[in-house]
Amino acid sequence: MSILSAESSGELEPERVALAGLLRACEPPSAALVRYVQGHGPEAAWQAVLARRAPRAVLSATAARVDGVDPAVLVARAEADLVAAARVGARLIGPPDDQWPGAAVSAFAGAMARGVRGAGPPLALYVRGRPLTGLPDRAVTVVGSRASSPYGTRVAGEMAYELARAGSVVVSGAAFGIDTAAHRSALQVVRSAPDEPRSVTVAVLACGIDRAYPEANRDLLDLIARHGSVVSEYPPGTVPARHRFLVRNRLIAAFGAATVVVEAGRRSGTLSTAAAAEQLGRMVMAVPGPVTSAMSVGCHLLLADRFAQLVTGADDVLTALGRTGRTGRLESRAVPGPHDGAVPGEDPRHPTDGLEPTNARVYDAFPTRGSTSVHELVVESGLPAATVMGALAVLQLHGLADQDGPQWRRVRPDRGTPPRQIG
Amino acid sequence: MSILSAESSGELEPERVALAGLLRACEPPSAALVRYVQGHGPEAAWQAVLARRAPRAVLSATAARVDGVDPAVLVARAEADLVAAARVGARLIGPPDDQWPGAAVSAFAGAMARGVRGAGPPLALYVRGRPLTGLPDRAVTVVGSRASSPYGTRVAGEMAYELARAGSVVVSGAAFGIDTAAHRSALQVVRSAPDEPRSVTVAVLACGIDRAYPEANRDLLDLIARHGSVVSEYPPGTVPARHRFLVRNRLIAAFGAATVVVEAGRRSGTLSTAAAAEQLGRMVMAVPGPVTSAMSVGCHLLLADRFAQLVTGADDVLTALGRTGRTGRLESRAVPGPHDGAVPGEDPRHPTDGLEPTNARVYDAFPTRGSTSVHELVVESGLPAATVMGALAVLQLHGLADQDGPQWRRVRPDRGTPPRQIG
Repeated sequence: MSILSAESSGELEPERVALAGLLRACEPPSAALVRYVQGHGPEAAWQAVLARRAPRAVLSATAARVDGVDPAVLVARAEADLVAAARVGARLIGPPDDQWPGAAVSAFAGAMARGVRGAGPPLALYVRGRPLTGLPDRAVTVVGSRASSPYGTRVAGEMAYELARAGSVVVSGAAFGIDTAAHRSALQVVRSAPDEPRSVTVAVLACGIDRAYPEANRDLLDLIARHGSVVSEYPPGTVPARHRFLVRNRLIAAFGAATVVVEAGRRSGTLSTAAAAEQLGRMVMAVPGPVTSAMSVGCHLLLADRFAQLVTGADDVLTALGRTGRTGRLESRAVPGPHDGAVPGEDPRHPTDGLEPTNARVYDAFPTRGSTSVHELVVESGLPAATVMGALAVLQLHGLADQDGPQWRRVRPDRGTPPRQIG
Repeated sequence: MSILSAESSGELEPERVALAGLLRACEPPSAALVRYVQGHGPEAAWQAVLARRAPRAVLSATAARVDGVDPAVLVARAEADLVAAARVGARLIGPPDDQWPGAAVSAFAGAMARGVRGAGPPLALYVRGRPLTGLPDRAVTVVGSRASSPYGTRVAGEMAYELARAGSVVVSGAAFGIDTAAHRSALQVVRSAPDEPRSVTVAVLACGIDRAYPEANRDLLDLIARHGSVVSEYPPGTVPARHRFLVRNRLIAAFGAATVVVEAGRRSGTLSTAAAAEQLGRMVMAVPGPVTSAMSVGCHLLLADRFAQLVTGADDVLTALGRTGRTGRLESRAVPGPHDGAVPGEDPRHPTDGLEPTNARVYDAFPTRGSTSVHELVVESGLPAATVMGALAVLQLHGLADQDGPQWRRVRPDRGTPPRQIG
């Protein structure tokens, strides 16, 4: 099968008609039908389905839409689907196509082998826009609540923008809220370079490729198709229905190397995307939020159960995926031991920052005003005299202590801010 | 040794003078000194330290404050410490006392056996207020940043109030910010019952029991002593110094069955309390917050490294500790599978909530307006006719579908709110 789309060839290829017909014959996912097509090729499988001579599982999967219908009508509908797709600039691709996201889809094989229900791969995909490249290795799925909070919208936007800027494809579902923020922010990256050839974002629909759902995102979907891709495994004209969002979510999860849940209510459908990602062996990540926000409850559930890795931004995502060159927000992972000389203050500019604990202890043993003797420092710090004298030398070197004959005084560097509470 | 305090006995018990002297002879923690006192009793140990005839490790630990000082002066200082403590209503307790928090302190033995540095138990404790009871089993340590945000202050306050109301003792460090919010909110519980005998909160100081640090919390510390306890292992008059906060933190961690970090900056000293809790075998918990808040970075570090368990409130803490009778905020732990019929909407009152996925799929296959046939539902849903008819019966039972001869129509229950976007 060539890459030529129905639109550019001007004539419908038989294999593509077969795939279109098979897509319409069966509500996805159907592992049985996909396996059958893999074994026999689309045309032979299509003919067998039309003639009702396929294996029992295939006949059962296609019964509702094929039994009793004139095969000529089914073929005509398949051809009409390709024409409807071409009318919105979409082409139908299947596994033999170069553009087929085989690396992303291969995850379903593993999930099926582990007996995961509903893990059937897509049979074929309608694609509008740029080729599907970089899935899943260079892609990150960013999803979340439709009823997102300003906080979630901001975090999703910043994350998607940074991910796209770092070369990742941002995958999402074009819904209101987090999805929209993710797509829009990824598109910001190409705003200054409209001829940039790479795809920055992919939207996977739960309805026909010729539909805009939600309708208010029609312009956004057009933009996505210009600088990325819009994808659907449903025949043109298919309306979005509840179960289709769940089925679609498995593709969203499969397309990214990781699925990041930015905000999700307690019962959010986004959690099903996280579950699908986990079943497909993808990394699941979640952004925490205020515990006072209902929109973060789903994220906190994922994190509390250690189902998801906590991330605070794009850097954390890329670091977890092992592909960052930049400094992660959470890069300093070391939790100080209780006696490792951790600095209790939040102010990084405290004079004793970076000092050995013993030296800091001697510094703290000084009276706030006036001078003191080595003996008094020994008593106050509880450290041996030799240790105190060694510490004084270090403090003097750092300009933190000053000697005047046998007396010592502490030097408090001018920090331009009033002294803070200790501890 | 009796429980009689120096204050009430009117005469200083020799054993208590010995403990006071030993506390002053050595900056805690000193595992060597504690072991020596455990082996020989406080009086014998004190005499040996004064006579400089103790084991090398003990002599070394006490050298800075004992060597070359007249023993009579040291004894006089110890007696003065007990008098100074009594003046603020504090007593000195040691391991033989009934009030000694042996169960909490026993954790140090395990940590020392595992070679944890600085895990020395306290030798004795100055206590103001009520007896130390319920540590650690009925106690929860609530700590966090001094420079807390309004969010952190609110969460700490709600958590401490609910913990105290549920019968827990709230342990903290009396610092500004989270600590203050925790103590104050725990005290709210006894506001209506000032004669309530139980202790609601314990403050562990990094300075002498006769000092108020921070000074602005003097009244708060008095209130804590009235309805709980103020504790210090430092001799009266000891000033708070940097290293003492770190040393004190190990006691705060030891006193609670869990340590909850509500807010912490990246370099917060609170992280040392979390580290101490972990080393002592206590549960470590952290409250997430906005990723845009510097005050939640420390909590997110603990959670990202899976060093801490995520909690969103008192219920989560009590649930994790296995002692709740109430409903936890995160009680619904189940993450729905991608095809388990998860409901994508956040609105818990969607008409198909609680329906089997197949039934919901048929419900969604209805046209938005008007009626439809079973055949059309079969085609739209992609389900076998028998399944569709079974689903229709269920939907009719739930009042979600209505039959008019061969035609069916969907019934949308009046929800008082406009229909939501699907998915």
